[in-house]
Amino acid sequence: MDAPFSPAASSPADGGELFVDMMSQPSRACCFFVHLARLPLTRRQVILGRKEQLLDSFPNPLKQVPCLVERDGFVLPESSAILKYLADRHAVADHWYPRELRARARVNAALDWQHFSLRRGAAGVTWFSLIARNMGMKTDPGMARAMLNVLRGALGKLEKTWLTDEAPFMMGSSQPCIADLLVSEEIFNLTLLEAIDEDFGMPPTLDALLGEDHPRITRFLAACQDLDWTEWRSIHGILHTARDKMAAKKKTRSRM
Amino acid sequence: MDAPFSPAASSPADGGELFVDMMSQPSRACCFFVHLARLPLTRRQVILGRKEQLLDSFPNPLKQVPCLVERDGFVLPESSAILKYLADRHAVADHWYPRELRARARVNAALDWQHFSLRRGAAGVTWFSLIARNMGMKTDPGMARAMLNVLRGALGKLEKTWLTDEAPFMMGSSQPCIADLLVSEEIFNLTLLEAIDEDFGMPPTLDALLGEDHPRITRFLAACQDLDWTEWRSIHGILHTARDKMAAKKKTRSRM
Repeated sequence: MDAPFSPAASSPADGGELFVDMMSQPSRACCFFVHLARLPLTRRQVILGRKEQLLDSFPNPLKQVPCLVERDGFVLPESSAILKYLADRHAVADHWYPRELRARARVNAALDWQHFSLRRGAAGVTWFSLIARNMGMKTDPGMARAMLNVLRGALGKLEKTWLTDEAPFMMGSSQPCIADLLVSEEIFNLTLLEAIDEDFGMPPTLDALLGEDHPRITRFLAACQDLDWTEWRSIHGILHTARDKMAAKKKTRSRM
Repeated sequence: MDAPFSPAASSPADGGELFVDMMSQPSRACCFFVHLARLPLTRRQVILGRKEQLLDSFPNPLKQVPCLVERDGFVLPESSAILKYLADRHAVADHWYPRELRARARVNAALDWQHFSLRRGAAGVTWFSLIARNMGMKTDPGMARAMLNVLRGALGKLEKTWLTDEAPFMMGSSQPCIADLLVSEEIFNLTLLEAIDEDFGMPPTLDALLGEDHPRITRFLAACQDLDWTEWRSIHGILHTARDKMAAKKKTRSRM
């Protein structure tokens, strides 16, 4: 039997281990940050689809990814808390998580905002119309539609409040912060719209969802991808493969 | 016409203004913190039921409470970000938001966890079965039941993971942190269960929800109340009055 939690990197690193599933958008945000900030962490893959996070040997008592485990056994759950801790622990460039109190407070606010609005909507849309079925649970068109409303509201606020015309990243910055990574991954994850059965009435693609009303978001997503296009493609490989497989099985019941 | 955003305190304070609605659980958490940590802030009341947060003069572009506005015009939304900023800005006692990196990271993780689990469930239950109607929108029994499942899962994790037998507050501490305030207010808000129509099938009271399976949560709630019982009663007055009014109008359709 294969050992669970297989390492993706072969060399051990002193900064500890990051347990992730590349199908999880907060996991990808943490991996992208570790890469961009050149942090000495080993990536360990947990397959949520096989319920590996429920094994007794999985270190996070909340049974979620991502999860950080340092060499002396310190365990930290929650993507936003992990990003903040890693930024301070490894003293990364200030733009990622500014030390000045007000600038830091604005990043904290952006992280909290995305958690209850954008993430709730985006993850809700794909869960209730697609992922739930793959996890052996029921899809729910009513819940999916409710979450689509939450998502549309959040995209509107992102376009008009958090992004500006002056610079590509959140809050008018020319350099990314940790909130940019979590926010963009929630949106990139909506490539899964392409695999949702048509009778759920969801927008058929991320482009269709954004339309022409979100030029700042379109520029923001491009800027996030361009932070490192090769690595971006690498960490999205599993997501895109899964999307293509699910899209191939997509039913077009509404056409019948 | 009454001026909106009436101050509850008459003396101006140098630390700025905190815009709150005492029907909002994160607003109450911020107010309790300001009181317990003796911060020099003026409380300004925003009545969400009158949609005062949508007025052009309301300073938060996200149109939510709570919102902090400092004297020079610095605006900060999001309860969790506000609590962190106030703790650092006013150098409050360390137990509220520890300076040591790992202790701080654990508080950050607790705050993030509660936002997407406990708050989503608790606020969802009361919104979809009660508050939506008061705000001129539709209740939704299916969504309320789904959120009750999220809430029960979160209470289980709180009981078994975040609370211990050793001490009353989260993560085994004998003194409260800012996460304790946000978590307890989400639970105290469930006194609104008493006002939900019986045909929604919700637990009839908070006590009934907790039952006998959550002794740590029961002790935790008592410890949070006891931080200052007089102030606790004061900041919950509006909630309890609203609950009693709505409970008086409660329909018992399932009995007919």
